[in-house]
Amino acid sequence: MDKKGLLLVVSGPSGAGKGTVCQGLIRKNKACFSLSVSLTTRKPRANEEQNKSYFFVNRSEFESLVKNDQVLEWAEVYGNLYGTPRQWVQEKLGKGETVLLEIDIQGALQIKRKFPECILIFIVPPSINELQARLIRRGTDDHAIIKKRLDCVQCELQEIPKYDYIVVNDQLEVALNQVSAIISAEKCRPNRFDLQNYLQLGESTDE
Amino acid sequence: MDKKGLLLVVSGPSGAGKGTVCQGLIRKNKACFSLSVSLTTRKPRANEEQNKSYFFVNRSEFESLVKNDQVLEWAEVYGNLYGTPRQWVQEKLGKGETVLLEIDIQGALQIKRKFPECILIFIVPPSINELQARLIRRGTDDHAIIKKRLDCVQCELQEIPKYDYIVVNDQLEVALNQVSAIISAEKCRPNRFDLQNYLQLGESTDE
Repeated sequence: MDKKGLLLVVSGPSGAGKGTVCQGLIRKNKACFSLSVSLTTRKPRANEEQNKSYFFVNRSEFESLVKNDQVLEWAEVYGNLYGTPRQWVQEKLGKGETVLLEIDIQGALQIKRKFPECILIFIVPPSINELQARLIRRGTDDHAIIKKRLDCVQCELQEIPKYDYIVVNDQLEVALNQVSAIISAEKCRPNRFDLQNYLQLGESTDE
Repeated sequence: MDKKGLLLVVSGPSGAGKGTVCQGLIRKNKACFSLSVSLTTRKPRANEEQNKSYFFVNRSEFESLVKNDQVLEWAEVYGNLYGTPRQWVQEKLGKGETVLLEIDIQGALQIKRKFPECILIFIVPPSINELQARLIRRGTDDHAIIKKRLDCVQCELQEIPKYDYIVVNDQLEVALNQVSAIISAEKCRPNRFDLQNYLQLGESTDE
């Protein structure tokens, strides 16, 4: 069997629980996953480590990486650039690791275009009403922003056909089991089966 | 969520353990599966029931079903016709059941052409040597037939890219878990997600 790793892109509307799902997967089996480390031009905070929290680079370094197709997706947020480094991801995949990337929908679709073998998972909340309740409970957004986020969700849901899998995050344990099943299933894909190696292993002994 | 069932086609070389895998799945969770019932022109044996062991039909009935595209795949074996009835399968799928079909490689590929939404699983033995050992242990084939079967396997393995999933049947429990994971993953496919229903369920309450 080919031991090449999987790039698992976990995405979905804000408040659907992408982060909770990724943390849950790592909690269940830390050894199986590498959480992707982003490039950023933002300044490190006191508790942040270079190459661990982020790869901190300056803007010209970032732009040069983009130019050399070394960034799988990127976006500018409040004047800072953030992106996913191709080389780091490919090194982890080469070692057979499952790289976990939590990202918004536009970023996920950018990655699928550059790296079609990645697995896109769309996390949806049980319903729009439940999503609204979660955003209110989270308390990080004011009423107007929550309203805007909910309006946005209807658009974002139209991207569902571009995804490989949809996981409804109603009960977290059920959602985690579904993502684990997706990983197991994807490891059984024919393009991961090393037929040459299999045939060598099984050379028929002529009697 | 769309509750439409899955057609799971379990195939692979003779001796790979297709039958053992299907029986294992049913043993683990009988309520989840319907084992496909074949059409046949062969005469019923004493212990066989009409519409349960097989759908027993005469040759002209069989040929008429084929002509009306009511047979998903068929083959002639020792002068008798055997086939998979489209209507029976579709009725089960309509009820949301997972229909399990154990079949040879040519039959599996016929079904995929007629019914592309089916899931093809190729069961492979851990190695060609192990396959040889199994065929000898099974004791149903003489030396010449075993030799022929093994020669055939190299050809059959070339069909792997046409399959959706490859499951190596080394330890049965591992193989059963992989097939269960494949079923769970396939139920998360976007074409099974009923977006219209989801949006109705979640209509944003205007405040």
